[in-house]
Amino acid sequence: MFFHDDELQFEVEVEEPNPYFAKMLQQAIGGAEGEMRVALQYMFQAFAVPAEKQEFRRLLMETACEELGHIEMLATAVSKNLAGAPEELREEAREDAVIDAMMSGGQPRQALSAGLHAMPVDSNGVPFTGGYVVASGNLAADMYANVMAESTGRLLATRLYEFTDDPGMKDMLAYLIARDTMHQNQWHAALEDMGEHVPVPASFPQEKENDDWNYAFMSTYREEREDPGRPWTEGTSFDGKEEFTYSPDQPGGGPPDLEEVIDEMYNEVN
Amino acid sequence: MFFHDDELQFEVEVEEPNPYFAKMLQQAIGGAEGEMRVALQYMFQAFAVPAEKQEFRRLLMETACEELGHIEMLATAVSKNLAGAPEELREEAREDAVIDAMMSGGQPRQALSAGLHAMPVDSNGVPFTGGYVVASGNLAADMYANVMAESTGRLLATRLYEFTDDPGMKDMLAYLIARDTMHQNQWHAALEDMGEHVPVPASFPQEKENDDWNYAFMSTYREEREDPGRPWTEGTSFDGKEEFTYSPDQPGGGPPDLEEVIDEMYNEVN
Amino acid sequence: MFFHDDELQFEVEVEEPNPYFAKMLQQAIGGAEGEMRVALQYMFQAFAVPAEKQEFRRLLMETACEELGHIEMLATAVSKNLAGAPEELREEAREDAVIDAMMSGGQPRQALSAGLHAMPVDSNGVPFTGGYVVASGNLAADMYANVMAESTGRLLATRLYEFTDDPGMKDMLAYLIARDTMHQNQWHAALEDMGEHVPVPASFPQEKENDDWNYAFMSTYREEREDPGRPWTEGTSFDGKEEFTYSPDQPGGGPPDLEEVIDEMYNEVN
Amino acid sequence: MFFHDDELQFEVEVEEPNPYFAKMLQQAIGGAEGEMRVALQYMFQAFAVPAEKQEFRRLLMETACEELGHIEMLATAVSKNLAGAPEELREEAREDAVIDAMMSGGQPRQALSAGLHAMPVDSNGVPFTGGYVVASGNLAADMYANVMAESTGRLLATRLYEFTDDPGMKDMLAYLIARDTMHQNQWHAALEDMGEHVPVPASFPQEKENDDWNYAFMSTYREEREDPGRPWTEGTSFDGKEEFTYSPDQPGGGPPDLEEVIDEMYNEVN
Amino acid sequence: MFFHDDELQFEVEVEEPNPYFAKMLQQAIGGAEGEMRVALQYMFQAFAVPAEKQEFRRLLMETACEELGHIEMLATAVSKNLAGAPEELREEAREDAVIDAMMSGGQPRQALSAGLHAMPVDSNGVPFTGGYVVASGNLAADMYANVMAESTGRLLATRLYEFTDDPGMKDMLAYLIARDTMHQNQWHAALEDMGEHVPVPASFPQEKENDDWNYAFMSTYREEREDPGRPWTEGTSFDGKEEFTYSPDQPGGGPPDLEEVIDEMYNEVN
Amino acid sequence: MFFHDDELQFEVEVEEPNPYFAKMLQQAIGGAEGEMRVALQYMFQAFAVPAEKQEFRRLLMETACEELGHIEMLATAVSKNLAGAPEELREEAREDAVIDAMMSGGQPRQALSAGLHAMPVDSNGVPFTGGYVVASGNLAADMYANVMAESTGRLLATRLYEFTDDPGMKDMLAYLIARDTMHQNQWHAALEDMGEHVPVPASFPQEKENDDWNYAFMSTYREEREDPGRPWTEGTSFDGKEEFTYSPDQPGGGPPDLEEVIDEMYNEVN
Repeated sequence: MFFHDDELQFEVEVEEPNPYFAKMLQQAIGGAEGEMRVALQYMFQAFAVPAEKQEFRRLLMETACEELGHIEMLATAVSKNLAGAPEELREEAREDAVIDAMMSGGQPRQALSAGLHAMPVDSNGVPFTGGYVVASGNLAADMYANVMAESTGRLLATRLYEFTDDPGMKDMLAYLIARDTMHQNQWHAALEDMGEHVPVPASFPQEKENDDWNYAFMSTYREEREDPGRPWTEGTSFDGKEEFTYSPDQPGGGPPDLEEVIDEMYNEVN
Repeated sequence: MFFHDDELQFEVEVEEPNPYFAKMLQQAIGGAEGEMRVALQYMFQAFAVPAEKQEFRRLLMETACEELGHIEMLATAVSKNLAGAPEELREEAREDAVIDAMMSGGQPRQALSAGLHAMPVDSNGVPFTGGYVVASGNLAADMYANVMAESTGRLLATRLYEFTDDPGMKDMLAYLIARDTMHQNQWHAALEDMGEHVPVPASFPQEKENDDWNYAFMSTYREEREDPGRPWTEGTSFDGKEEFTYSPDQPGGGPPDLEEVIDEMYNEVN
Repeated sequence: MFFHDDELQFEVEVEEPNPYFAKMLQQAIGGAEGEMRVALQYMFQAFAVPAEKQEFRRLLMETACEELGHIEMLATAVSKNLAGAPEELREEAREDAVIDAMMSGGQPRQALSAGLHAMPVDSNGVPFTGGYVVASGNLAADMYANVMAESTGRLLATRLYEFTDDPGMKDMLAYLIARDTMHQNQWHAALEDMGEHVPVPASFPQEKENDDWNYAFMSTYREEREDPGRPWTEGTSFDGKEEFTYSPDQPGGGPPDLEEVIDEMYNEVN
Repeated sequence: MFFHDDELQFEVEVEEPNPYFAKMLQQAIGGAEGEMRVALQYMFQAFAVPAEKQEFRRLLMETACEELGHIEMLATAVSKNLAGAPEELREEAREDAVIDAMMSGGQPRQALSAGLHAMPVDSNGVPFTGGYVVASGNLAADMYANVMAESTGRLLATRLYEFTDDPGMKDMLAYLIARDTMHQNQWHAALEDMGEHVPVPASFPQEKENDDWNYAFMSTYREEREDPGRPWTEGTSFDGKEEFTYSPDQPGGGPPDLEEVIDEMYNEVN
Repeated sequence: MFFHDDELQFEVEVEEPNPYFAKMLQQAIGGAEGEMRVALQYMFQAFAVPAEKQEFRRLLMETACEELGHIEMLATAVSKNLAGAPEELREEAREDAVIDAMMSGGQPRQALSAGLHAMPVDSNGVPFTGGYVVASGNLAADMYANVMAESTGRLLATRLYEFTDDPGMKDMLAYLIARDTMHQNQWHAALEDMGEHVPVPASFPQEKENDDWNYAFMSTYREEREDPGRPWTEGTSFDGKEEFTYSPDQPGGGPPDLEEVIDEMYNEVN
Repeated sequence: MFFHDDELQFEVEVEEPNPYFAKMLQQAIGGAEGEMRVALQYMFQAFAVPAEKQEFRRLLMETACEELGHIEMLATAVSKNLAGAPEELREEAREDAVIDAMMSGGQPRQALSAGLHAMPVDSNGVPFTGGYVVASGNLAADMYANVMAESTGRLLATRLYEFTDDPGMKDMLAYLIARDTMHQNQWHAALEDMGEHVPVPASFPQEKENDDWNYAFMSTYREEREDPGRPWTEGTSFDGKEEFTYSPDQPGGGPPDLEEVIDEMYNEVN
């Protein structure tokens, strides 16, 4: 069950509105690395946690809620970059400047579909899709999805930080980058807390997997090459269970040998 | 530059063709956890590696090529589950059985669009999308994306393993599960080899981030609660740089206070 | 800013788990008529409300939050339909029954990608898309989008009501149908409260529109027909501003007369 | 059954071709508020009307056909904005101007995929999707979808009107805005003609819905607040059936209490 | 400009309604090989034809209109397969039969979103997308797209023909298959009428292309192989301009040698 | 099974990096006319070839592999256009120039999501989709899909050729255009080699199709017109089997006459 308040989670100020930056910010709202993705991802992951693991449901829901507040902050930032020109400029050049920017290189739908406000799309204008959300039912796999989401999310925020000189925007991004630092740390901490979990899913009995090929680095070079002696071709494997080996070639399994399909498919040419 | 051979990477045999399992296998071809995703992901990551880090380009291309071979194996498995009935059965019931299955619960497009063969879609019939591919330009972020892809990929393969009793399919899946074990290990090994990289991107100077909120677990409960004393609310942070703290509430940043936008948007109701 | 609680908004009980009904329920989560759409739609609409119209921001945020709770309820219902078999059945037939259902006619990804839990997709398995969300910047247009969303949403819920005999599911749906009754009423009430707003946007000066064709019903029949004398071809227009008229034909504007494009496009065949 | 003629439905002239405006016009072709959506929406709604309600099938088909003509007009407008430079300019600067515009801020695919012509995509370049089309089988729900489509459609057209100074384009848009005025009026008139239909679907027996919560405005504020005394929290409900009430809190339904799922899903971490 | 009539283009009768076949028919409506694709494809191609080539605009518009009528026929067929049970059966088992079919293997959204009618989606339930439409601006390229669309379209119709025993459905499909025969023939005839056009676009001066590699079949086998002596490795090329040759290997262009990107992207790991 | 080498297939040099051209090149990577489409299309077509037609599997796999190399070349070209400024310029204006370009009219995600590298998206920023891939199971239909893909692909490459003055880019494109010349020729040659195959699928017995309408050009003009005497309305049909005829009108099949659907759908308005 969810609740809200009238305040933003953190202040959002824009000194110099910039419609081009508004377009960039959309990536942090509706993009693959954005806040809609993590808010919904943590939510769906939480919805799948069984009763006996409520501490993980709690962990996920706490942060899902926080991310909803980030969407609100970023949407506010988009609106302020598109429409929040100082009063004295409103009567004059500002209006045309926004329209010019939307025409030449802004994101047209921010004006045409949303009246100069935020949308659930990315910086290229592509709608957010539920396909970004990873909630696998296995908490270790989910945590790796979360580490990855916060890694690419923080990378996005640092790049946005470099695309603006506005002090208000830099403050907001410095806060969001800090939260991504925390979130990366917390998901890693959760993984440590889970004990041994590599290879995911660790609950699958490893004796069922093909044990000729589960710790061998497989080269696919046209010409066979020697073992390059890298940490993934020799030494103890990351999970500590076996030694890495190096295979200069792929096993090979014979030709596929497909039969013709039934006539009703009309696959025959004539 | 790429090359090929007539053989499959590993043998693919189907004793009891099962059109329902053909549908399930599509998830491992064109799904979010599937082989098209990892093949293209490792390829685009490799394409972005600068010359001085060629060992990582090599690592990524080796495995990208291997995954292309997995697509071929799985596509062969789909065809054999849809069309590979033993010769003596071909003249009789088999044909209707396949058609019945496609009608009642199979994936219609495998018959209607592909003539009983594999397609670049997932098990729900949704086309593969480039949106699954993560190639961020930052190798640490990419490696976490790869760990996650192989974690959900191996989880998928273990679930498929339980959906079939066919010995040929179990052999093929035992091989693919083994390769995912190796790939999880190799991406983790690559991360270890990179040295300190958390929080990603570690090249962003952390003094620029908001240091009140970068190691604080933020609770969003309606009623403020006490620190639950979990590994993500106290103790040294995962990256070893600070202590985790617990905040029972969100900072709060005042109301959003948006101005009206320019008249030309006709946002006014009347 | 958002908060949460450990409880569901309303109880969710399933007496007879039914994996087929789990698939149907996905439409109410990630479908065009579902709760993700309205939750995000009301949220993005609220994010665009200027400071002087805070009562509308409040109205929208209150309901956005409620809809987030509906997603949680429905996701819980999906999990319980997929996995909540009574303990005594767990060791026996139940497991195969779920797997059989997923194979033959269930939604494969609920098992393969989500481990028998809910996903942000619709009942056909197509991911939720931000393209469903309407937040136009004009509150009257937004309210009509909301009336429509709750109309198709309530229609969906009534159909789901007929697809189940489970008393717990019927209780949950009776609650959701009731909420849609309220929401339809509240958006209509908001429209009444706004005063004259048809045609939307009423702030566009109607003297700029073509006044030969703004209250004429235009027939496109191959053979011209007589005015059928319907409430949309005669009498006072709905907005009370003019009389409806009937045109047996379209105005006609001459042929399109396109020129050839520049040579660099190579549009010429030879 | 459909027919056509060589003429446009209304004249389309462009005095000053503008490749940026061509991009904007795409929203009115392939966007969520565009003509492809309404043409197909009215068509699919018409296709579902049973024989005894032919007057509604007729109403819908008349307008579906008209909207097909609008797609043709807008596609012509796009081509003329991209390629219709006056003859004397063709040999000189014009060509580079178009190419420059496409490079810097135009929609690349209009040149690269379509040779400087219109495409079934929106102004952000995202393809039209059948997901925009609403045809619910219930005519009241459909009419609300139509009111909404014409409301956002007219809003789009008024915004486009402000993005151009070209007299030909203003004439075309003044005509399209007028048609949207008519269409909003006609769908509202059809709703009036249907009699009582709120809440949609009115054919669902309301005694089956939860009658504690079907006319109560539900607040989701973190801190409980007093009834704000708005037209949606008190007084007679819009449908005239009950009194609106105000609930300062959500009902609450206990924790979700999920069980573990079957082992074959490998949801266990280790 | 478009017109319509009350009649279908060809009769559509269903003797034995079959909800599974209704699902299959969706592929011919909203699928990649379906009628929405060709109707819109021919329309957008027509919209791009310059004035001096009106005979091609006419050719395309004639057939675009015909295809609109096919959508109407197929949508009618879907409705009749979902809802058109004989009167005497209506009161009894039929209703449950439809609901059972939708639950177990039908397309859920046909019931839940469309009230047992057709939708603009394919047989897997994936929405139609404007991405299917090819209108390149070059008429030869367009005609090949049309030949391909009618080839896969006729293939689909013949497969559907085998999935039904209903005489009404077989009549309808025999008509649609016949029309695809005609359409394949007419687009081929148009290509012949255009004169030399291979390679498309023939208007690009071929002396600008790399003439070492424009008629050489390039082998990508791991081990170099001999020329197999096939019609694409030797003899006169299809366009009659040169001799085919065989290259046992790819040219090779050195390593990619990328530099590091600017620091502001934070691509560096640490 | 697949292999790779360290070299590109053909050299890729960029003298004057141009971030706008990088955006254009994306169309040739992830667009409908791009290399990902053909690489995967030929691959999936090859995967479906039965054992007795191995020469076609070989033909398709040879070229699939070549196209993978084209993706690599184009991705390298994107990176070099975004980041490959000469060393002396790196410290100065170049960096801002790239950022300025991304802000105003570049593709934001190339910077924000990919760190100034290539992505599996098109020039409008829309992700590649498996929906582009055509692999029908019938080799003649597949070959026409391939002729069409190489026709629109070569058209795209010639347009890109005109959008750049960079000698390195012109060399690369001259090579790719040459390969498309070859590929068009080879697919046409394969069609010739297959013998009679029109209408596709030729294996469907033509006596089953409706023989009143399989060689008749059908006019859909509002007013009936005379036979225009074109090569598709008279003379021998392209397939040589019958004479083309001209029908001034459509057959007509009576009204659709749908019944009401079952009550449980709540299609009734009230």
